[in-house]
Amino acid sequence: MPTIDPDRLLADLRTLRSIGAQGPGVVRPAFSAPDMEARRWLKARYEEAGLEATIDGVGNVLGRSRGRGKALLIGSHSDTQPTGGWLDGALGVIYALEVVRTLAADEATRAFAVDAVSFQDEESRFIGCLGSRSLIGALTPELEQGAVDRDGVKLGDALREAGIADAPRLRLAPERYAGFLEAHIEQGPHLEDTGKKIGVVSGIVGLRGVRFVFRGQQNHAGTTMMARRRDAATALYELAHRINQEFPKVAAERSVWTMGRARIEPNATSIVPGYAELDLQFRDASEAPLDAFEAVVEGLVAEMNARGGVRIEATRARAPIAPTRMDESLQWHIAQAAERHAPGKWQRMPSGAFHDAGIVSACIPSAMLFIPSIGGISHDFAEDSRDDDIVLGCRVLADAAASILASTPRER
Amino acid sequence: MPTIDPDRLLADLRTLRSIGAQGPGVVRPAFSAPDMEARRWLKARYEEAGLEATIDGVGNVLGRSRGRGKALLIGSHSDTQPTGGWLDGALGVIYALEVVRTLAADEATRAFAVDAVSFQDEESRFIGCLGSRSLIGALTPELEQGAVDRDGVKLGDALREAGIADAPRLRLAPERYAGFLEAHIEQGPHLEDTGKKIGVVSGIVGLRGVRFVFRGQQNHAGTTMMARRRDAATALYELAHRINQEFPKVAAERSVWTMGRARIEPNATSIVPGYAELDLQFRDASEAPLDAFEAVVEGLVAEMNARGGVRIEATRARAPIAPTRMDESLQWHIAQAAERHAPGKWQRMPSGAFHDAGIVSACIPSAMLFIPSIGGISHDFAEDSRDDDIVLGCRVLADAAASILASTPRER
Repeated sequence: MPTIDPDRLLADLRTLRSIGAQGPGVVRPAFSAPDMEARRWLKARYEEAGLEATIDGVGNVLGRSRGRGKALLIGSHSDTQPTGGWLDGALGVIYALEVVRTLAADEATRAFAVDAVSFQDEESRFIGCLGSRSLIGALTPELEQGAVDRDGVKLGDALREAGIADAPRLRLAPERYAGFLEAHIEQGPHLEDTGKKIGVVSGIVGLRGVRFVFRGQQNHAGTTMMARRRDAATALYELAHRINQEFPKVAAERSVWTMGRARIEPNATSIVPGYAELDLQFRDASEAPLDAFEAVVEGLVAEMNARGGVRIEATRARAPIAPTRMDESLQWHIAQAAERHAPGKWQRMPSGAFHDAGIVSACIPSAMLFIPSIGGISHDFAEDSRDDDIVLGCRVLADAAASILASTPRER
Repeated sequence: MPTIDPDRLLADLRTLRSIGAQGPGVVRPAFSAPDMEARRWLKARYEEAGLEATIDGVGNVLGRSRGRGKALLIGSHSDTQPTGGWLDGALGVIYALEVVRTLAADEATRAFAVDAVSFQDEESRFIGCLGSRSLIGALTPELEQGAVDRDGVKLGDALREAGIADAPRLRLAPERYAGFLEAHIEQGPHLEDTGKKIGVVSGIVGLRGVRFVFRGQQNHAGTTMMARRRDAATALYELAHRINQEFPKVAAERSVWTMGRARIEPNATSIVPGYAELDLQFRDASEAPLDAFEAVVEGLVAEMNARGGVRIEATRARAPIAPTRMDESLQWHIAQAAERHAPGKWQRMPSGAFHDAGIVSACIPSAMLFIPSIGGISHDFAEDSRDDDIVLGCRVLADAAASILASTPRER
């Protein structure tokens, strides 16, 4: 059985954490100076580990094995949220490096081909999962042209600034790979709540978004009688509350929905608002509840518009993400490895958050492994996991990788 | 009957409009350079009209009659909203000037004492009705110390900047006055809707405000299950919608309520919000519906807090304003004058907006007259009234003023 080096693993994680560190957190958004520094550092580590390493034209760092036979791709992303935690993405990236080194050091696994990857901009500074989209050929010119960050910086300018605008963009050759494995912190409380150490991800939930725009009439809050008002905020409050009342009636067990963003204009205490916006997002591991939610929304909007007054427009806010199943065979290998290292302390579970594996799975068989997040906290400086759990997760991943490659025909 | 000069009236209104003009609107917030220029211009007009004129230590412009006997105070404010209309306040200020000149030019009314005033900061850059509060002695040091505008400028610094910090602050001597008259645009659609030309204001509605703070727990919108969420926005939508459902059950005919400002943090589509704020404001001409609204709010908040989850705190957002009755005798004189100049085309009505007359009425008998606003629009560059209506309103005011002073014992 391959044996990882826990000290080397934790030391590399801490070095990566130091690039862009702010207090306990990390500020390393895609294409920022710390992000590019981290990518150059990773490339050097890949080369030390014997891989042929490249930073491609969108910032992906890919380390390719010189070994023959089908390869396993392992990795995650090293960019962070604007005020991110130290493990989101970084964990899976350093795990991949450690698995490459571990398998290369063992007589029994030395011949196995493992490629390591750090995708670019998973966290959506410009386009969520930009790097994995590009690697599988799903980054369209249309998507790319309109891409600006929240400060108005264009993607093209960020690529030039980072010095990679003219570098070739890599593409995954599906025939090269036996599959893709991504390890990640759970970013939720389930594993911790149930005392489990490993999550074997069964699928990644689908996500749909609706933006509501409410058009009424701005007026003086003292002189405009109630019957005459066309108050955009009143309509927003009603629709939002009724969605929260109706959705549970058609929801599946793990469906979630969120209306975390509302904008009212002019947003003044003494003015009847004439304009408002509300974002609704809903997720589930299967399409049926998502369809049911859309039908509820359509019904409520039609009913409220039929009354007159405020006019509500509902538009899909972004391309919907379909629910993704993780590959059954790869899941089996991870589950077997989890049972060997943490008997009875693993479970299958869907991922409520989106991940690069959701993109890559359209191209090659993919699977994911979760380790517990302390308090379920993520996307926050306070994000953390126990050292024991970090080490255990890497042991399971290395074992699963070896097991997958051992059962894969060597010919490409 | 005193005869105003329509051309002089409209010319002066247009000259005042030109000070701080931006397109069709006016930007002349209290203590700004255009505001102080307008006040110096007014002081000179008061002096031309034979008044003893002063700009006092908070910026009020007061022109005092040299006539003997009880005086009538007439006026309004010449400061504007940050992006204001040309008539809000200015109309009543120029009316006062025109009434002074008209009564002085007529043998029958020459001996009547009319004082003209332009109050400072009615529009609440620092403190709503700052000038009238100061004139009646209701501007407390506590109120003044905390006063900052929305850019963080302190009132004391604005007074120094305007060059009036060391000027004496005037006080109205109640025994000098037979009363106070304020003419104003309606700022609502009632007169226009009903084809009336003059509103005789019966009272000014009271106003109370509540600020709700919702404290929940910020979380990831994909990985946090619904049952575990403490979503501040969900509680906000529910409370706001239920207020809109419950208030009509206890409202009086002309009660109004508004929730025009909401703030959600971090206000992101993919994040379960942990914090939110909502402002509720409600107005009525009598206290009973206001008390009933407060009871509804208390009941809803108690019920929602008893459920656990998000914690709601409700605090009174500002000192409540009590409903104010306008003086019956002064109303009668305005109504008689309205009937003489616009038979059948006037009505009694409450004011849904607050005015300096609501402050001054605590000190001397006060009354108000409204003229129609085109489309009911105010606090907007598009605010306007018809020239005919402007002239008619001034005729009614001059006639009412003469009638009031004719029926007032001359001795102070």
